[in-house]
Amino acid sequence: MINKDLEILKSWNDEDSKRAILDFLRTAEVKGPDYIKPEDRIATFDNDGTLWVEKPVAVWFDFMFKAFYKAAIDDPFLAHLEPYNAILENDQDYISKIVDQNPEALLSLEKALAHAWGGKTPDEFDKEVSDFISTAKHADFQVSYTKLIYKPMLELFELLHEHQYRVFVCSGGGRDFMRSIAESTLGIFKENIIGTAAEYEYKNGELIRINKVLGGISLGPGKVEHIFATTGRYPVFAVGNSDGDIEMLDISRFKLIINHDDSDREYSYTDGAENVLNNAEEKGYTILSMKNDWKQIF
Amino acid sequence: MINKDLEILKSWNDEDSKRAILDFLRTAEVKGPDYIKPEDRIATFDNDGTLWVEKPVAVWFDFMFKAFYKAAIDDPFLAHLEPYNAILENDQDYISKIVDQNPEALLSLEKALAHAWGGKTPDEFDKEVSDFISTAKHADFQVSYTKLIYKPMLELFELLHEHQYRVFVCSGGGRDFMRSIAESTLGIFKENIIGTAAEYEYKNGELIRINKVLGGISLGPGKVEHIFATTGRYPVFAVGNSDGDIEMLDISRFKLIINHDDSDREYSYTDGAENVLNNAEEKGYTILSMKNDWKQIF
Repeated sequence: MINKDLEILKSWNDEDSKRAILDFLRTAEVKGPDYIKPEDRIATFDNDGTLWVEKPVAVWFDFMFKAFYKAAIDDPFLAHLEPYNAILENDQDYISKIVDQNPEALLSLEKALAHAWGGKTPDEFDKEVSDFISTAKHADFQVSYTKLIYKPMLELFELLHEHQYRVFVCSGGGRDFMRSIAESTLGIFKENIIGTAAEYEYKNGELIRINKVLGGISLGPGKVEHIFATTGRYPVFAVGNSDGDIEMLDISRFKLIINHDDSDREYSYTDGAENVLNNAEEKGYTILSMKNDWKQIF
Repeated sequence: MINKDLEILKSWNDEDSKRAILDFLRTAEVKGPDYIKPEDRIATFDNDGTLWVEKPVAVWFDFMFKAFYKAAIDDPFLAHLEPYNAILENDQDYISKIVDQNPEALLSLEKALAHAWGGKTPDEFDKEVSDFISTAKHADFQVSYTKLIYKPMLELFELLHEHQYRVFVCSGGGRDFMRSIAESTLGIFKENIIGTAAEYEYKNGELIRINKVLGGISLGPGKVEHIFATTGRYPVFAVGNSDGDIEMLDISRFKLIINHDDSDREYSYTDGAENVLNNAEEKGYTILSMKNDWKQIF
């Protein structure tokens, strides 16, 4: 088993984070105080910045902002409200507030999100995602966003599956957006994607999206709520990269943080991750250095 | 494969329902117009009356009514409201309305359900379920409810798993109630249970149940909404036994109804299933006769 594990994690250097993962998995399989029953083997991963690039702007934000821009052009009433106004005017201060998860900005986002795509069917929404994904390019890398998924993370999915963990993605962003691309890019089923989502109403033989967010935004404490609603459990293995992941990490046994410190191959930043990084030692988080711990990123 | 399939369905007589199931599974695996891709292989089962006995009263109702009874005793204000009053006074007319899914009665139930167990943690709720399950006995059979799960249905779960279907239970009743017992009695993970559920709020390191139902009651159109929210798909294989399952059956490719026609070994009744039975031929539902199609029920 050990040799096979090492073979699976082929993009990982022999550093602390890899050793901590392998140690955790091995210990959890030995009967004793740290044993984890197969039914409890739930792993949850944050999405943006944990599974793929989130700078200069998270993919979900790019998709959403383009839709809000169009909505504000179509409906002048919206143009005076936030976040539409900020997007139309390219008000970077307000956009930073959203990206940095300022509560007031998040509330305006939640409202806009509930309003967007109202009246659409799941197929119509999927079509918009697929059009976006097939045309949008990353601002710096100039490739499709789906080329910017971290290869070592897909290997970690495989390793966890080998050890009978059920792997869930818990995104702060749109659940249905990620479900649209989960199977072809992440190799996990739609039902393993948790995230912020609109309610749908089934009427006249169709599901129609209504202007309501189901169970609130999946961020911070919301991640724990959404994970419990989906799985009925707390995860035992959690991976994140920002302060919005703190609650999810804290309820988990194994807690891994991605530190974006690789300005050559990706980006180097700590904004939005100050608390999670500063309290790592006290909280027992394992820190993964993208620069040192990964042989290959994409 | 065929021989193994027959071996798995050992409690099933060689009748139409068994043949229709095996035909469907075989056809769905052959490339062609009826082929179903592995990712689309979602099977959903109603719970009460489909997986276990629901007469004279569904297990979930028994659990819930006992809790409402206690709540009405503790809080005289509640005692004047429905459904508490009906439960205190043993008002069978009103209780029948709930059981038969009268809209007004269901609304009173939804409110009571949102109110019940408010402020409790998941562990506290699980403890109540476990106390109930370990002491409650079925009124007629005088055994624990968990002894009244239909053996042929567990075999059907196994058959579907063999054919790479993901099996979900979609209950009109309480999701967390069924999750408490799903793994030990049905052999499926908690995350494969869909149903009516309260919202939880994560605060001070704990999940606390709040007075809100997450996404409405999982019945009729609500079943389709909950199945989509959980899986991101429509099922291709659906099994039910009452009019509350119609929408779930109609969106599925294979549609199976359990007809309770076995007064010797279980019960014989059609109330609450009039529409689903009367329209079966027109709608392409396969009807399973408990009396003729099952060698053994429990």
